[in-house]
Amino acid sequence: MSSHVPNFDAGVPCPKTGQPLLPAIAQDATTGRVLMLAWMNREAWDETISGNRAVYFSRSRGKLWRKGDTSGHAQVVREIRVDCDADTILLSVEQTGAACHENYESCFFRRVDPDGTTHITEERIA
Amino acid sequence: MSSHVPNFDAGVPCPKTGQPLLPAIAQDATTGRVLMLAWMNREAWDETISGNRAVYFSRSRGKLWRKGDTSGHAQVVREIRVDCDADTILLSVEQTGAACHENYESCFFRRVDPDGTTHITEERIA
Repeated sequence: MSSHVPNFDAGVPCPKTGQPLLPAIAQDATTGRVLMLAWMNREAWDETISGNRAVYFSRSRGKLWRKGDTSGHAQVVREIRVDCDADTILLSVEQTGAACHENYESCFFRRVDPDGTTHITEERIA
Repeated sequence: MSSHVPNFDAGVPCPKTGQPLLPAIAQDATTGRVLMLAWMNREAWDETISGNRAVYFSRSRGKLWRKGDTSGHAQVVREIRVDCDADTILLSVEQTGAACHENYESCFFRRVDPDGTTHITEERIA
């Protein structure tokens, strides 16, 4: 048992603010589908772990991103894991609506074939 | 259909070499379990997509990491996806042995509870 996670000292600097950020993967709690990858700073982590909603840090906007505040597409967090190096976060979530801002269920709606071509494999859900 | 993925211009600089790297999530093709997150540079991507094994780029060693070459724990790639922004890669893989260098099936063998304590939820498999 340890409370020294995650290790933000190993984070990647935010291009806007320089704060260390760690990648956070959101996975659908029911289907296991990987929905998206976003980033967290320590504040986003603290808010996520103490609340019940996924909070990220927007690298492009350089500020906290409480997912769903604008879109309504919030994520209720069911479980949180960290990896062996404590520098990647895995959230098991209940997703409301589309995880992707392009209104696909998952941001990973494109398959890449060995020749490098991409193929959209599903319909938008919203 | 497009071949302009992934977008390495949006990559995170390698702390060793400065090359742009993108996060790559490996997910078990059978169970859907998220096994690990690693990084790719363009060379790792090219080798992964043209071959059938996952190749990453080690941020700590600053060089290509053909997963399994040392450990034997290789990943056969069954499907490759990119996200909406083309700056995260998702691999569906058949994992030989443990994905984690600590010999757990997945690097995400620790759950974090709301009080910040971590709990190992499984046994090593090797």
